[in-house]
Amino acid sequence: MVKGESMQPMHQLMGYDRAITMFSPDGRLLQVEYAKKTVRQGSTAIAMVCSDGLLFVTDKRIIDSLVVPETVEKIWQIDEHIGATASGILSDARVLIERAQLKAQQHRVTFDSAIDTLTVVKDICDLKQICTQSGGLRPFGVSLLVAGIDNNVPRLYETDPTGIFYQYKATVIGEGEPEIEEILQKRDPPDK
Amino acid sequence: MVKGESMQPMHQLMGYDRAITMFSPDGRLLQVEYAKKTVRQGSTAIAMVCSDGLLFVTDKRIIDSLVVPETVEKIWQIDEHIGATASGILSDARVLIERAQLKAQQHRVTFDSAIDTLTVVKDICDLKQICTQSGGLRPFGVSLLVAGIDNNVPRLYETDPTGIFYQYKATVIGEGEPEIEEILQKRDPPDK
Amino acid sequence: MVKGESMQPMHQLMGYDRAITMFSPDGRLLQVEYAKKTVRQGSTAIAMVCSDGLLFVTDKRIIDSLVVPETVEKIWQIDEHIGATASGILSDARVLIERAQLKAQQHRVTFDSAIDTLTVVKDICDLKQICTQSGGLRPFGVSLLVAGIDNNVPRLYETDPTGIFYQYKATVIGEGEPEIEEILQKRDPPDK
Amino acid sequence: MVKGESMQPMHQLMGYDRAITMFSPDGRLLQVEYAKKTVRQGSTAIAMVCSDGLLFVTDKRIIDSLVVPETVEKIWQIDEHIGATASGILSDARVLIERAQLKAQQHRVTFDSAIDTLTVVKDICDLKQICTQSGGLRPFGVSLLVAGIDNNVPRLYETDPTGIFYQYKATVIGEGEPEIEEILQKRDPPDK
Amino acid sequence: MVKGESMQPMHQLMGYDRAITMFSPDGRLLQVEYAKKTVRQGSTAIAMVCSDGLLFVTDKRIIDSLVVPETVEKIWQIDEHIGATASGILSDARVLIERAQLKAQQHRVTFDSAIDTLTVVKDICDLKQICTQSGGLRPFGVSLLVAGIDNNVPRLYETDPTGIFYQYKATVIGEGEPEIEEILQKRDPPDK
Amino acid sequence: MVKGESMQPMHQLMGYDRAITMFSPDGRLLQVEYAKKTVRQGSTAIAMVCSDGLLFVTDKRIIDSLVVPETVEKIWQIDEHIGATASGILSDARVLIERAQLKAQQHRVTFDSAIDTLTVVKDICDLKQICTQSGGLRPFGVSLLVAGIDNNVPRLYETDPTGIFYQYKATVIGEGEPEIEEILQKRDPPDK
Amino acid sequence: MVKGESMQPMHQLMGYDRAITMFSPDGRLLQVEYAKKTVRQGSTAIAMVCSDGLLFVTDKRIIDSLVVPETVEKIWQIDEHIGATASGILSDARVLIERAQLKAQQHRVTFDSAIDTLTVVKDICDLKQICTQSGGLRPFGVSLLVAGIDNNVPRLYETDPTGIFYQYKATVIGEGEPEIEEILQKRDPPDK
Repeated sequence: MVKGESMQPMHQLMGYDRAITMFSPDGRLLQVEYAKKTVRQGSTAIAMVCSDGLLFVTDKRIIDSLVVPETVEKIWQIDEHIGATASGILSDARVLIERAQLKAQQHRVTFDSAIDTLTVVKDICDLKQICTQSGGLRPFGVSLLVAGIDNNVPRLYETDPTGIFYQYKATVIGEGEPEIEEILQKRDPPDK
Repeated sequence: MVKGESMQPMHQLMGYDRAITMFSPDGRLLQVEYAKKTVRQGSTAIAMVCSDGLLFVTDKRIIDSLVVPETVEKIWQIDEHIGATASGILSDARVLIERAQLKAQQHRVTFDSAIDTLTVVKDICDLKQICTQSGGLRPFGVSLLVAGIDNNVPRLYETDPTGIFYQYKATVIGEGEPEIEEILQKRDPPDK
Repeated sequence: MVKGESMQPMHQLMGYDRAITMFSPDGRLLQVEYAKKTVRQGSTAIAMVCSDGLLFVTDKRIIDSLVVPETVEKIWQIDEHIGATASGILSDARVLIERAQLKAQQHRVTFDSAIDTLTVVKDICDLKQICTQSGGLRPFGVSLLVAGIDNNVPRLYETDPTGIFYQYKATVIGEGEPEIEEILQKRDPPDK
Repeated sequence: MVKGESMQPMHQLMGYDRAITMFSPDGRLLQVEYAKKTVRQGSTAIAMVCSDGLLFVTDKRIIDSLVVPETVEKIWQIDEHIGATASGILSDARVLIERAQLKAQQHRVTFDSAIDTLTVVKDICDLKQICTQSGGLRPFGVSLLVAGIDNNVPRLYETDPTGIFYQYKATVIGEGEPEIEEILQKRDPPDK
Repeated sequence: MVKGESMQPMHQLMGYDRAITMFSPDGRLLQVEYAKKTVRQGSTAIAMVCSDGLLFVTDKRIIDSLVVPETVEKIWQIDEHIGATASGILSDARVLIERAQLKAQQHRVTFDSAIDTLTVVKDICDLKQICTQSGGLRPFGVSLLVAGIDNNVPRLYETDPTGIFYQYKATVIGEGEPEIEEILQKRDPPDK
Repeated sequence: MVKGESMQPMHQLMGYDRAITMFSPDGRLLQVEYAKKTVRQGSTAIAMVCSDGLLFVTDKRIIDSLVVPETVEKIWQIDEHIGATASGILSDARVLIERAQLKAQQHRVTFDSAIDTLTVVKDICDLKQICTQSGGLRPFGVSLLVAGIDNNVPRLYETDPTGIFYQYKATVIGEGEPEIEEILQKRDPPDK
Repeated sequence: MVKGESMQPMHQLMGYDRAITMFSPDGRLLQVEYAKKTVRQGSTAIAMVCSDGLLFVTDKRIIDSLVVPETVEKIWQIDEHIGATASGILSDARVLIERAQLKAQQHRVTFDSAIDTLTVVKDICDLKQICTQSGGLRPFGVSLLVAGIDNNVPRLYETDPTGIFYQYKATVIGEGEPEIEEILQKRDPPDK
């Protein structure tokens, strides 16, 4: 989208990107696009649906040898059957994960059954969408990979800062995304 | 409206388009017009009233082969007899669809009958209108095609970011709209 | 008011018209004046008090042959005896009409009698006035012609974006207003 | 106040008049002064205390022959014994008048007696003052002449956009104020 | 404070005086200083503690001969034993006086005794202080002289727009303050 | 911190000091620093812990001979055993003192014992901190010296506009602080 | 990240760092980065997990000899088994510490057991995160080292202004961080 790129500096000069709830003249939400850039610069996180389960691979990026490595959280458990990883602002991720954990727990108490992975994903994305539309809030600067096993079927979702989500066979977010994606595409994905 | 077009850059320089609840000197709401541009750049969605029902055609735009294609939602079911598709920001669409689903469900519980398609459309448009008039909110960057069969009569509506809606025999939103519209107009539309 | 006109561009350069709740140095509310421009560019709507009732004439401006023409609403029924038409932003009109319909319905339930046309008009204008005085809201970009028959007497009112209203024998809003007004003035208005 | 006048353009350049709750460096509230200018450009309204009652004279400024002249309100009845007229933004006036009518009605119900004209005037002015001090609201762009007969004594008050009021023997607001005031001053005012 | 004076125009150019809740780099609240200028331009008001009571002298500044002079309020009674006068924006004064009158009345009802003059003054100053610290409100543009006789002891207080107050033997606010103050200082003030 | 000083004018030009809840690029809260400047320009206030109690010395700065000098408050009693003095905006001080008095009184009623001086100081500082972090409020432009005798032990605290406090043997705020501090440091402070 | 550094002055010129809830075009939250700079300039604070407990070392930076040195708080007790130290704005620290103390106390009352150190840390970080995402609040300008002994296991956490935390064997914040960190890394950390 060559035209869009070359117009962006002009949009910056004119301030279209300095207020959240605003479209640029070519119909873009620049603050949301910048939040996505934060994600692309985050530490790499990979998730795959395998023939016998789900696989998370993350780069913890521990550059300080004094950190207790086994305590660095990059993969969170939302419920017995649902996990998640993230790339971007990790404190933003934690807010979303804690919300999802609570949601899952409430579901167990209320319905006496495990929550669906998709329900968790939709709830996360509803909050993300609100933060792109209401004034006084910035978009979440984080993408989440949420994966769970619902009735023995593994499912993997990616949510972006816009609040959009897709179901994937395998996906990667953060640093090195284009290169790793190519590798993932070459692998023969399991049929469902 | 040649004059209007040539005046737009000047309006941009002067900031009429950087606050939602504001008219430009020639009486336009620029943020709403930019939101419509978002829709025009969205993936194509077509809906038609046919002699024996309704037809939705959508371009899912799946460019990543790792996405599980059959899970990509571009056509949503609002109720047993009402469906919808969208073009623009899909997370904005989801918020509106979820609201419509809830509305339809509440109608069934309260009145023990199916909701009218027009009632659903009006409710969506009321929320869209508010987002063009109240500060601290941006307009919804999405158009919806909502179609349903009320008492065996198929009805199709298009809602734009302003909150305006029209009933159509057949219509298209998103990329390629002018070309596809021409084709649709040539087809003999059913009487009703 | 030549002076006012020549001063307007200077006021625009200085930003008097980029915040709603603000007077310009010559005592004008520019955002309200721009909203009126929106109305003048809207599709034409005419209403007349006739010897034996009321007449609405509207231009539906259907330029897309795929629209179902008989479903395009430009004349709304507020109550059994009150109708309305509009020029300007039609989604703004719908918000006001729906409010009026509710108001009329509530009146019937509460007082077991039909609401007065003037009461409906005043209620619409109260909301319009608030939107010219409170921050965080833009003025309504629509004029309404509201006409009703109260105790066999037909009455016709025009409301503008300021929230001002007048009773008319016949009136026109939207595109072509000056030309049509001249024609209406030549017609002999009924003495009532 | 020559200095003040010559400083005003500088104040405008520097933006002291583009936010309501703000003093200019020479201690003026410019938005309130602009609101007063709106009043001076309004249609003329005169009120006088006469030997045997009160007199209102107003210019309805009906320039459109299609308006039903006898329905144009420029003199309102607040209660049996209190009337009012206005100059400036007439929808602003209506808001204040409706509030006063309600206040008068509540007084009758609560105390079983007629409200004092001064009480009505003070209540109007309290609301006007708030709109000059709180953010998110513009001053009322209207002056009101409120006159009533309390215990057989006629009283006439003028309220300006600041929320200041004075009792007058006779007074004029709107277009032509200086000229008409001269005439009123020449008339021998009743001793009361 | 020569340095402060010469820096003020620079502060104005840089906007330190165009938002209420803000200090200038040299530690001043410019909006409050401008409000004080409003007071200095107001009509003169003098109050004195005399050997046998309190004296108020005010300039009503009636320049319009049509005003009923005896109705112009510049000295208000807050309670049987407390009076007040003001200089600056008189509608601001009225808001404070009405609040004080209510406060005094409530005191009588609650404690069955007269309110202390100092209690009234502190309450007025608390409200004035809030208006210099909270966003969305401008400072009160008025100084009040409040004087009362508590247990046969006359007391006189001056409150400024900052919400600061001092007890005086005699004091003057408004136009001509420096000259009149000199005269008051020459007079032998009563010992109390 | 030479670099910081030379960078400040640039920060002023760029507006880092014109919104409260904002850090400058070198990590400073400029509005809080300006509030501290207000304090440094205030009238001098000294407090000391002596061998047999506490000593307050204040400059009342009475430049108007008409003020009743014994009524000028610069030393306030918060409770029987706690006093305070201030430098900076005195109406800001009063708000904090009145809050502390209420807090002390509530403590007596609730716990039937005297409040700790430190508890009073912490409560004052909590409010001061909030005013440096929340939008729509300016920092308090005042430093307080709060001193009390808790169980026969005298304690003296200084609170600044940031909401930071320290316990002192003797301290000074306001005009002439550096010079007086030198003198205080030469005096042999009591051990405790 | 050379490019980021060289772009920062441009971002400053364009105002990306003058509103909290906003990303810069390269996906950074500049206000949060400035808050971190405040921390780096704060007084040094060190914490270590030792073989038989926890060690806090802090620089109290007492430059005024009149301050009572033993009263300067830089190490706070949150509960019997949890302590904390801080670097940055100390009044911001106090707000977080008081909140943590209350949280710990409530835990004891509710569950009759000691709170986990991690629970305290997460609660502090939740509040810190909110202050980086909501308008009208600035980020906390302080890092905290929180350390506790849970069931005989010592644990040490560092929280930054973003609301991110890590568990450390030993860590340092504030002035001199790089140099001291090198020393800490050379020390053989205990295996736990």
